[in-house]
Amino acid sequence: MATRLGRRSVTFDRAPAIIETANLAGAMEFDGPLGEYLQVRIDDPYLGEASWEKAESRMQEEALRAVLRRAGRQETEVDLCITSDMLNQCTSCSMALRHLDVPHLGIFSACASLTEALYLAATAIEAGTAGLVMVDVCSHHESAERTYRFPTELGIQRPPTAQWTATGAVAFLIQAGAAGPRITGATVGRVIDAGITDPYDMGSAMAPAAVDTLVTHFREFGRAPDAYDLILTGDLARVGSAVARQLLREQGYELGDRYSDCGVLLYDAERQDVHSGGSGMACSALVLSGFLMHQLRTGRYRRILLAATGALHSPTTYKQGESIPAICHAVVLEAEPGGAGEGEGA
Amino acid sequence: MATRLGRRSVTFDRAPAIIETANLAGAMEFDGPLGEYLQVRIDDPYLGEASWEKAESRMQEEALRAVLRRAGRQETEVDLCITSDMLNQCTSCSMALRHLDVPHLGIFSACASLTEALYLAATAIEAGTAGLVMVDVCSHHESAERTYRFPTELGIQRPPTAQWTATGAVAFLIQAGAAGPRITGATVGRVIDAGITDPYDMGSAMAPAAVDTLVTHFREFGRAPDAYDLILTGDLARVGSAVARQLLREQGYELGDRYSDCGVLLYDAERQDVHSGGSGMACSALVLSGFLMHQLRTGRYRRILLAATGALHSPTTYKQGESIPAICHAVVLEAEPGGAGEGEGA
Repeated sequence: MATRLGRRSVTFDRAPAIIETANLAGAMEFDGPLGEYLQVRIDDPYLGEASWEKAESRMQEEALRAVLRRAGRQETEVDLCITSDMLNQCTSCSMALRHLDVPHLGIFSACASLTEALYLAATAIEAGTAGLVMVDVCSHHESAERTYRFPTELGIQRPPTAQWTATGAVAFLIQAGAAGPRITGATVGRVIDAGITDPYDMGSAMAPAAVDTLVTHFREFGRAPDAYDLILTGDLARVGSAVARQLLREQGYELGDRYSDCGVLLYDAERQDVHSGGSGMACSALVLSGFLMHQLRTGRYRRILLAATGALHSPTTYKQGESIPAICHAVVLEAEPGGAGEGEGA
Repeated sequence: MATRLGRRSVTFDRAPAIIETANLAGAMEFDGPLGEYLQVRIDDPYLGEASWEKAESRMQEEALRAVLRRAGRQETEVDLCITSDMLNQCTSCSMALRHLDVPHLGIFSACASLTEALYLAATAIEAGTAGLVMVDVCSHHESAERTYRFPTELGIQRPPTAQWTATGAVAFLIQAGAAGPRITGATVGRVIDAGITDPYDMGSAMAPAAVDTLVTHFREFGRAPDAYDLILTGDLARVGSAVARQLLREQGYELGDRYSDCGVLLYDAERQDVHSGGSGMACSALVLSGFLMHQLRTGRYRRILLAATGALHSPTTYKQGESIPAICHAVVLEAEPGGAGEGEGA
């Protein structure tokens, strides 16, 4: 059973482990500062397919198969597969999953889907409804741009607040009582609308939702930020994470170097033309699958708070004059007690 | 804790109750055979809003507020709110939920979202991550037609296999240890693609997924179809439910009068111009919220199997030549033991 710490926060008593992860990522992501932690490089954004949407789906299927292969498990051992993507009707998932024999739940919290999926995986394991759970999220720069903004062929100029949708597909296998970094708790988000209407400034739109979840997390867990080696938002990027930092300061939380954002970490703003930074479901997922899993496995980080952030708009809503609601779900990830890195410190 | 009966099936030991439900529905749905069981009639499909999408979101917000009001509960008592809708990026949910203070999880399994949400609500309660869970799904005929096929203003001719997307928003409150029909078990679906490519024949596309889940359910639960007073698929309508009935027969399951489909029940094919029958997330949800809840509360049905079905395509995928994958999640609903209708029989 989980233990409820407040209305939005729980700890998972079984603390299921992320036993394996697999990722595929684009050239931009491999050329970024965290490229050394990534696994499969996609140089052809079409992956040999006839469209970006088909390429995205192929990428997701390959991530799902790769994580099973790496863990030496069969698809028929998977009790539950929780996935999301950014295409309309989450079709990247559906087109990939028709080729696998796995019980499937589709979710959608935009780019906060990664942590919603990890929360649900841990919940299912606590409830006893599943033993081995697979999680997969993905995004593809080209398919996302034409879904949400403009086809990249048009060469539309992007303002400095714009973010770069990451290309990547990322899968995780989660199981209790096994080796690997643990999911020990979570704080579920609320939908927060700060009134931002510019789809080229999603960082500012999402920052208040991130702050709402982080502050709720600290209060309900009774923890100060220094209980964490790292507190990481999902894809606020430079513009949004500066807003979040300021809003947290106003509520009495000075996070300092302990805080960063996956959209800031994934690319090198000096060398790479990503404007404010990274976004997309793959943004936080690639950072978790590569860099963070390495840090947790080696014990360099003992406990981190990953707060993925999602902008819940569509082209239809912003063309109808709606502002951009957002959400942020946070999960607590901890190095395995007594694991390989025990005692090495942060 | 839940008890696992097989890879895809579980029973919920706490058997959480559906303590209250609220629904709003359009004129077509009120004029159908089950109209007497519905609550709030929407005669203006715009609900006074400037677009159908805004109307759909308003409808969903009103359903969420109505279910709380009917149960005498406050939004701040809700531990988890699980929602879905059919607009791109599920924006009907997001635009509604920004006005409520509830922890939120977005899901998407197309028209199988209702039973995925009920499954997840029961799972969260079994895990102890939530006490009071709210579930809401909705669809709107006009917004769905222009999202998935053609704007209705164009007057495109529809073939006889086409279905009618229901207009409705439906909310449920779920809690363990309270009065009301129980969620006692579930069987999770797999993504099944039978190769159908016609978005005007979703019933045929979804029927194999429904059969896969029903047959798995009977096997894993060790139950014959006569263990149920009623077995109901979500929105296969006349064309799809005939296909499902035939496929079940080929696998040795003769369901007879025990089997029907929400898309068949919701409208009167003789009087109403709905072609094959109903579809949309609201289709199975309105049938559950109105007719089925009444039958379970009065004990006229003691145990039913609700197997909502979802077509997991998008206009992009079918324009790119993809077939239509589908999924079906089933939940077991039982009348309260010793409840009002105990002993009245089916």
